[in-house]
Amino acid sequence: MPDPPRTQPACHVPSMTYCVAMSLDAGIIFASDSRTNAGVDQIGRFSKMKVFAQEGERVIVTLSSGNLSLTQNALSILDQKARGGDSELHLGNAQSMFDVARLLGDSLRDVKSRDGPYLMQNNVDASANFLIGGQIRGEPPRLFNVYGEGNFIEATPDTCYFQIGETKYGKPIIDRVIKRTTSLVDATKCTMVSFDSTMRSNISVGLPIDLLVYETDTLRIKLSRRIEETDPYFQMVHTQWGEGLRRVFAQLPDPDWT
Amino acid sequence: MPDPPRTQPACHVPSMTYCVAMSLDAGIIFASDSRTNAGVDQIGRFSKMKVFAQEGERVIVTLSSGNLSLTQNALSILDQKARGGDSELHLGNAQSMFDVARLLGDSLRDVKSRDGPYLMQNNVDASANFLIGGQIRGEPPRLFNVYGEGNFIEATPDTCYFQIGETKYGKPIIDRVIKRTTSLVDATKCTMVSFDSTMRSNISVGLPIDLLVYETDTLRIKLSRRIEETDPYFQMVHTQWGEGLRRVFAQLPDPDWT
Repeated sequence: MPDPPRTQPACHVPSMTYCVAMSLDAGIIFASDSRTNAGVDQIGRFSKMKVFAQEGERVIVTLSSGNLSLTQNALSILDQKARGGDSELHLGNAQSMFDVARLLGDSLRDVKSRDGPYLMQNNVDASANFLIGGQIRGEPPRLFNVYGEGNFIEATPDTCYFQIGETKYGKPIIDRVIKRTTSLVDATKCTMVSFDSTMRSNISVGLPIDLLVYETDTLRIKLSRRIEETDPYFQMVHTQWGEGLRRVFAQLPDPDWT
Repeated sequence: MPDPPRTQPACHVPSMTYCVAMSLDAGIIFASDSRTNAGVDQIGRFSKMKVFAQEGERVIVTLSSGNLSLTQNALSILDQKARGGDSELHLGNAQSMFDVARLLGDSLRDVKSRDGPYLMQNNVDASANFLIGGQIRGEPPRLFNVYGEGNFIEATPDTCYFQIGETKYGKPIIDRVIKRTTSLVDATKCTMVSFDSTMRSNISVGLPIDLLVYETDTLRIKLSRRIEETDPYFQMVHTQWGEGLRRVFAQLPDPDWT
């Protein structure tokens, strides 16, 4: 009996997060769960949403997934730069969201250069992803998806939303409902359904949900809300959506094959 | 500027398949798509379902996902053994589905011992998974999930279905509908919805669908059907399910947060 073959490296990284951001004509919706864990016996609560706002000037929101130390550190670097005065480019003086996305990519690369190799040595998940969006006075709202390598893409009318983390369970309803022209209210409702579907299927994604709604050209936060287990609206969505699906299923005719 | 850190090995293997099998009191449902590809420019059609049946004696069905050469070869080894006479255990003389699952695990290990290292050298996907189930006279129907390493688990009343390949998009409807006591007709309907959801979100999963329905203690195939693009029932499920979801969504009340 020959030796068993080497199997592929076990580098599957479970998604411990769900974040979604939708860039619509009416504005941008940001939402993230708040569960982190290092194994099921070590579950914590960390907001994955960070807001940088100067009313009338700029609203910038980040959502993050992956290794919490990497994403937190990258955001801390961004933060320090913003407090370092205007000798260099930072969140507070950048004139475009494109420059802001670049700043975030650079910060992430700094952290990964420092910590990445040490994490790799012990096979610790070194993934880190960001959604960053908002509006700076003088340009329209913009939304970016910053990858673990620090490069990024921008949402377009064709693809107006991004997800990071556990993306699959919550994607179908977004694909069916969300268009660039969808209202902020419908998009908020869709976001709740998307989170409900995700949390139903992946216990590593959990309440509370941080929700932020930005309305185009207001340059201030329209709605910022933390949705807890007890939230009556979310509970209603959970119940009525489940019942609705079962009702639609029951109404489908039977196959006549047998 | 320091060197960028080594990123994790790129060993994500896209799922090019969706297979599901449900072990119910009434029988077992098997279904698989028929798309294989090596890159989007090389798409082929291979049935992922194989049936070994001796009416009145045994019905054994396999579904496979992963590297086609590995899964095909493993099944060919099973097949050769069955034609090799009764000097050794094979599909035709095994007295339990447990022994059949072991045979399949051994065949897969044989192939991986031979080909695995060569695939690894070129970073070729060496994954291979099987669902194998059915009934052998003298014992109840049984269903197993054989992993890439040749070990396996059996479906139970608590967990009465298995999926392999692109499992996520098609899972929620199964979780909402399927119980051990679900009828074969409802389970067939649910299987169609599960495939529709999967194919809508993952283009690497495609029609036709091979469907096989086995009814407990009959020891013969109740229904074996290939569902093509033109199948009116599947088209109806696709349309009515999509409309139903949008209807349920539209009926959800709006949040009163804003």
